[in-house]
Amino acid sequence: MEFTEIAYEVVDGIATLTLDRPAKLNAFTSTMADELVEAFDAADADGDVRVVIVTGRGRGFCAGADLSRGASTFDASDGARAADQRHGEVDGVPRDRGGVVSLRVAASRKPVIGAINGPAVGIGATMTLPMDVRIAAESARFGFVFARRGLVPEAASSWFLPRVVGISQAMEWVATGRVFDAAEALAGRLVSRVVPDDALLGTAHALAREIADNTSAVSVSVSRQLLWSMLGAPGPWEAHRLDSRAIDLLGRGPDAAEGVASFLEKRPAVYPGRVPGDYPDVVPPWPPIP
Amino acid sequence: MEFTEIAYEVVDGIATLTLDRPAKLNAFTSTMADELVEAFDAADADGDVRVVIVTGRGRGFCAGADLSRGASTFDASDGARAADQRHGEVDGVPRDRGGVVSLRVAASRKPVIGAINGPAVGIGATMTLPMDVRIAAESARFGFVFARRGLVPEAASSWFLPRVVGISQAMEWVATGRVFDAAEALAGRLVSRVVPDDALLGTAHALAREIADNTSAVSVSVSRQLLWSMLGAPGPWEAHRLDSRAIDLLGRGPDAAEGVASFLEKRPAVYPGRVPGDYPDVVPPWPPIP
Amino acid sequence: MEFTEIAYEVVDGIATLTLDRPAKLNAFTSTMADELVEAFDAADADGDVRVVIVTGRGRGFCAGADLSRGASTFDASDGARAADQRHGEVDGVPRDRGGVVSLRVAASRKPVIGAINGPAVGIGATMTLPMDVRIAAESARFGFVFARRGLVPEAASSWFLPRVVGISQAMEWVATGRVFDAAEALAGRLVSRVVPDDALLGTAHALAREIADNTSAVSVSVSRQLLWSMLGAPGPWEAHRLDSRAIDLLGRGPDAAEGVASFLEKRPAVYPGRVPGDYPDVVPPWPPIP
Repeated sequence: MEFTEIAYEVVDGIATLTLDRPAKLNAFTSTMADELVEAFDAADADGDVRVVIVTGRGRGFCAGADLSRGASTFDASDGARAADQRHGEVDGVPRDRGGVVSLRVAASRKPVIGAINGPAVGIGATMTLPMDVRIAAESARFGFVFARRGLVPEAASSWFLPRVVGISQAMEWVATGRVFDAAEALAGRLVSRVVPDDALLGTAHALAREIADNTSAVSVSVSRQLLWSMLGAPGPWEAHRLDSRAIDLLGRGPDAAEGVASFLEKRPAVYPGRVPGDYPDVVPPWPPIP
Repeated sequence: MEFTEIAYEVVDGIATLTLDRPAKLNAFTSTMADELVEAFDAADADGDVRVVIVTGRGRGFCAGADLSRGASTFDASDGARAADQRHGEVDGVPRDRGGVVSLRVAASRKPVIGAINGPAVGIGATMTLPMDVRIAAESARFGFVFARRGLVPEAASSWFLPRVVGISQAMEWVATGRVFDAAEALAGRLVSRVVPDDALLGTAHALAREIADNTSAVSVSVSRQLLWSMLGAPGPWEAHRLDSRAIDLLGRGPDAAEGVASFLEKRPAVYPGRVPGDYPDVVPPWPPIP
Repeated sequence: MEFTEIAYEVVDGIATLTLDRPAKLNAFTSTMADELVEAFDAADADGDVRVVIVTGRGRGFCAGADLSRGASTFDASDGARAADQRHGEVDGVPRDRGGVVSLRVAASRKPVIGAINGPAVGIGATMTLPMDVRIAAESARFGFVFARRGLVPEAASSWFLPRVVGISQAMEWVATGRVFDAAEALAGRLVSRVVPDDALLGTAHALAREIADNTSAVSVSVSRQLLWSMLGAPGPWEAHRLDSRAIDLLGRGPDAAEGVASFLEKRPAVYPGRVPGDYPDVVPPWPPIP
């Protein structure tokens, strides 16, 4: 794959996806959106990839939308912006390109760890919400700054943010549009931990390894789909139906046999199952972007 | 406006709504319910109002329903109570007047800050749940005491409370009906912070100013509708549709142009948009009370 | 009642339900599932029972599924396992027996306190999620270890777990499958408090007494149904309808009269209402297992 605004590397089962416009604090563009989608497609399709880490090159994680077109940056009637509308339309208007990314992240079949190395502002913050775990470096900064730009939170963050941090914390950050530090992010449960800058990638890798070295790829993948898709379900009954199906199907399979045998024999497990190769038809796929 | 049980004042873009029956610890009545709805209508309709603060006069915030009718207070077959049923019926029974208030707060187009100055008990606690941020004075007390009155949590708090504090904390407070202090409220995430009594209104005003001085009124208003209405949505797809529409509409507008320009020029923004005057048709309105 | 794998005891309004296979760390079996359902039926049907406490005998709470059949433990095509499928089928596959328990706990008409005395792993952890409050002894351990057994979280925990601890914490525990201690459970809000081992049952009893001694049984029961059933509701309107009905019905009743009278007279309340005898037709029953 040839990427121009991100880097994509797979080492020992971990795909690291690096936002890569360091001179611009990795400001978000339509090209970056396309490349992120392509990279997640690649990670899902690669049976060697167990976990995805997303981070930023240089001082920033992602400073938000690239504002180089100035005041008309978000004006779809502006020629330059209109030419950029390559993500198609929804209900007759240009599709929010932040949502193109966040909905793709939500649908990932591999668990996703955000390693926030510096400012994560606007779409730089909202794109991290469908990731499973967010770890912040001490110099990370966050901002749901949309109300300070005359816009609204995008990337479906009105749905994701209250589910990650609760409605009250979400509203305070959205209504003020303030930029806040890693300690406030931790107190508000936006990130699971804060570590020294030079320990960020090491911490993210250790968590990725904990997943990759101890679990069944198929189990983690189906579990991720189950939890995210049940997050909006009206009750536990659909979960019970899918559980019954998953336990029946996976319970007959080689990963469950190995999981139980290795546990009883007190030895590390070696799960044969791979994703996507052995991904079972259990959880209805996260719907395509409408 | 002539109010008898609340006070309503607008200063510098901030509407302060004060529960005003201090001799009764601001105990809740049908008149108070009506006046609260009227005050929220006024704040929404006034383009000069950016933020609403709700607090209580004197030692209490709101001690709960006025119990001056004694044991038959909640008996709708009691003559006095029946005469009080001015909020109409739902499904053939008198409408819960707590819900009349809480559903109106939820529909507010201006962000709402609760400044809890003393006991907030029963409806005094549940009416604060659809507010965006709750700040407690050290002498604040809270109680979802309904099970100690032979009633159940009202004001749609069975929906709001678990979304604010989580189902486990909600059930502990509801099942015990205990009255608890500000520290327990903070630990349980019912309030975002606890401040000395004499710093309460100052803290609430500082937060209100942070919103009013830095953000687009239109952005904050649409964002509030988006987050609260997506809180019960089955998935992020409707959010994505509304985002696309909001970004398209607001992105062409003067607030977005000013937001980006002021940011790039490193100067304070002056957003021209006002609410309700410039409130766009993006988020379907919060349904009327059924 | 004659139980073989649990113990059931009612003292002073508190039913204590003890998982009772201490030599196996109370490993879960189909018999235990049946007996748990039967015990919750008994507690619901007994007007003397106000609160249910669930704990484990010996060093463990529940070590998870009994793995004595080895690698084929979860293989429904295995003869021994198939014979165990007494919980019927759902959508043509054997019903997840963890869900049989967790959905029954969710439907309980009495509040449920989990007193986690030791390892609570797999179904031992997921069965506690529909309980209202979880209290951990210092030596408690937790693990959503399914991905380390080649399975997925069951007992409808994909629905319950994110609602109890948030989606990010839920995904970290599920994706790693790690076993973690009581302190991590507390930090992640899986349990409400951690106490010394020898204080566990005393703490659980004190909370149960706080409920039993101060509240209306009918109120607590209806409140529990309201909160859990509204947890997946799309908005507050259905809550408002049920509130109006509950306030009307309970407000005319003897518990509300006693609740208000005792409060005004500053004396302990003695509520006449009992559950199930006086349980009103307000909240639609939690649907039967599909």
